[in-house]
Amino acid sequence: MPKPNAFYAQSGGVTAVINASACGVIETARRHRDRIGKVYAGNNGIIGALTEDMFDTSKETARAIAALRHTPGGAFGSARYKLKSLEANRAEYERLIEVFRAHNIGYFFYNGGGDSADTCYKVSQLSKKLGFPVQAVHVPKTVDNDLPITDNCPGFGSVAKYVAVSTREAALDVASMARTSTKVFILEVMGRHAGWIAAAAGLAGNGPAEAPHVILFPEVPFKKATFLRRVKQCVRDYEYCVVVVSEGAQYKDGRFIADAGTVDAFGHKQLGGAAEVIAQMVRDELGLKYHYAIADYLQRSARHIASATDVEQAYAVGRAAVEMALAGKNSVMPAITRTSDKPYRWKITAAPLSRVANREKMMPKRYITRDGFGITAACRKYLEPLIRGEDYPPYRNGLPDYVELKRVPVPKKSGTRFVL
Amino acid sequence: MPKPNAFYAQSGGVTAVINASACGVIETARRHRDRIGKVYAGNNGIIGALTEDMFDTSKETARAIAALRHTPGGAFGSARYKLKSLEANRAEYERLIEVFRAHNIGYFFYNGGGDSADTCYKVSQLSKKLGFPVQAVHVPKTVDNDLPITDNCPGFGSVAKYVAVSTREAALDVASMARTSTKVFILEVMGRHAGWIAAAAGLAGNGPAEAPHVILFPEVPFKKATFLRRVKQCVRDYEYCVVVVSEGAQYKDGRFIADAGTVDAFGHKQLGGAAEVIAQMVRDELGLKYHYAIADYLQRSARHIASATDVEQAYAVGRAAVEMALAGKNSVMPAITRTSDKPYRWKITAAPLSRVANREKMMPKRYITRDGFGITAACRKYLEPLIRGEDYPPYRNGLPDYVELKRVPVPKKSGTRFVL
Repeated sequence: MPKPNAFYAQSGGVTAVINASACGVIETARRHRDRIGKVYAGNNGIIGALTEDMFDTSKETARAIAALRHTPGGAFGSARYKLKSLEANRAEYERLIEVFRAHNIGYFFYNGGGDSADTCYKVSQLSKKLGFPVQAVHVPKTVDNDLPITDNCPGFGSVAKYVAVSTREAALDVASMARTSTKVFILEVMGRHAGWIAAAAGLAGNGPAEAPHVILFPEVPFKKATFLRRVKQCVRDYEYCVVVVSEGAQYKDGRFIADAGTVDAFGHKQLGGAAEVIAQMVRDELGLKYHYAIADYLQRSARHIASATDVEQAYAVGRAAVEMALAGKNSVMPAITRTSDKPYRWKITAAPLSRVANREKMMPKRYITRDGFGITAACRKYLEPLIRGEDYPPYRNGLPDYVELKRVPVPKKSGTRFVL
Repeated sequence: MPKPNAFYAQSGGVTAVINASACGVIETARRHRDRIGKVYAGNNGIIGALTEDMFDTSKETARAIAALRHTPGGAFGSARYKLKSLEANRAEYERLIEVFRAHNIGYFFYNGGGDSADTCYKVSQLSKKLGFPVQAVHVPKTVDNDLPITDNCPGFGSVAKYVAVSTREAALDVASMARTSTKVFILEVMGRHAGWIAAAAGLAGNGPAEAPHVILFPEVPFKKATFLRRVKQCVRDYEYCVVVVSEGAQYKDGRFIADAGTVDAFGHKQLGGAAEVIAQMVRDELGLKYHYAIADYLQRSARHIASATDVEQAYAVGRAAVEMALAGKNSVMPAITRTSDKPYRWKITAAPLSRVANREKMMPKRYITRDGFGITAACRKYLEPLIRGEDYPPYRNGLPDYVELKRVPVPKKSGTRFVL
């Protein structure tokens, strides 16, 4: 039997550094050619495995693979496609194993968040039962920073840096114009259920006079009157007020401040518009001039201002995933374990997927100030190392020189077709 | 009579590099201490002169002044405050001269856009008439890039770079998710009347397949049906569509796509919301999943990704303003004159303010493609050099280390108080 090949796929929302993990996986696999055949990457994530639509990464040059480290987005395509439960759609899992068998896939590296950790776990369990055991290793990734066990999630540090830097910069702008122009500036950031990203904005300032003056977390029930009072006071004391609002900010009854009413493939509500709702309150109730920005995808694709720590960790979990697989580990996730805050030190440990899948890590209460509008010193201590360091991509003609892979398809072998 | 002092003020919307111009003015003045006394900076721009509220920049260290070069926002505060016409409010101009006389101000450096060029012009004219001639030099600045004569306006190149980089990055994100997620991504950028900023997004891609696929310029009347047809076609051909919309995009009859209905101190309509209107069209008429980002102040304060060319030119016009004043020039603006495209070469020349004030430079028709949705090769040739080079600020603890000045007030001398 020839050396087993590896399958790698990206899942869920992409980040500025998910390709750095891909780079870690592929480069490490290439260093172990004696034990790993080729690395096949799923076109559009797991869909690529189901439809037998894969790219042969061995056709890419070493230079192109190295460039993944500084290229944002998902180089092979990602997907918001959650496999159903084994009971609900066993056929999907069986199809995965069928494709893996056809292509002699012995390693399954799945790069995503909580949902994909669950898929990864099931693949490892089922492949054994079906007589084609695949070593499944989950490579953590999510800007939401809500995976358990790991100190943080690759992808988050760079969004955190983007949000902190942008808040500091926009605050300087607003502060210098406040006398005659905008008094209240609102920045909407991502974070469906957890306020990690919003919290990162708190790194931009120190003390109550510095922006952001108000952070609206999903974890803290929104009280309109208290909020407006704080904004008013802020404008009185400092002439301006910078508000950072999480897209997931919500009322006590769980209603989002802004609820677009649509749902994505994972069954999550699709949000957007919190900033505008807040802006309207400021205008209608306080009569203050406002502006708002919605960072949306800009924040999670901003490789140009990625955190060096994040890039390093994203690469490291990719590398560790392969090393763990080679060490015979199965059904695990390389987790980042913090060993020291100052100086920041960390190592990679193997977390069992049974303990990772489908668990969300919320912000601890002690990370949010008593008034609910800011971050504590403990939160700062946690977040600060994650945005440390700059890791600039190369530039050409004034623009980042991001790589575009050749994406050579792997010839189909399974002989059957699968309809999603 | 002692050496004349200089007055410097920032006006209108601030930029990522307006402080680089301040740096150029102050450092150059310091190199000519034999002829220029102190540089006083207006607190909140021209309001600081009217209310005799100024900062003594001589109290700042050389290190702090040098750090202005990499600090966004307006270090002395800017203002949206347009002086009325001489006929409508002669008192304001007379007050300016009164304050200048009290503080022995012989040089007036006004750092702003078209409106402030006009003010600067009037100050030079009136001061002569009132027997206290002040040499007035306008230092160009505006992200809108709409000043005449000068090749481009300091502040624009950095917004252009931010918008081009962000478009490229977000496009990679959207492209990798399009199969199962967002199909249409909309980025709203600034540009009240001129589409220069929107045009800069066009640098992100090459050819019809690359984002941005559609740019909506203020100069091209918006036709809903044509636009939607293009978006649909784009999604069919490339699986996704990136739209960049100028806040000033408008219908044939001049109605803005989004009109907030409010007006700023310069009488300009306050905009915002074009992206959302476009998004709603995409949803309602095409039923496609969309996301939108509104860059708002992030784009003009993004010093972290400033164009090195822009920083250099912003500094250069500040320095040239002082040198022109010392050479006896009056009522002029240092204009950037392009002498070569490839390699990009430029020099500073003196443009008479009578030819600058109150004229807007629109995008030439030949810069927009025939279909109205993209930029031409000529436009690209013009824009490319302006985003060239990176000029990263220093970082501390993962965040840009921007300077905060001491801002030591100048003791009042005029003996009178002026109410705005």
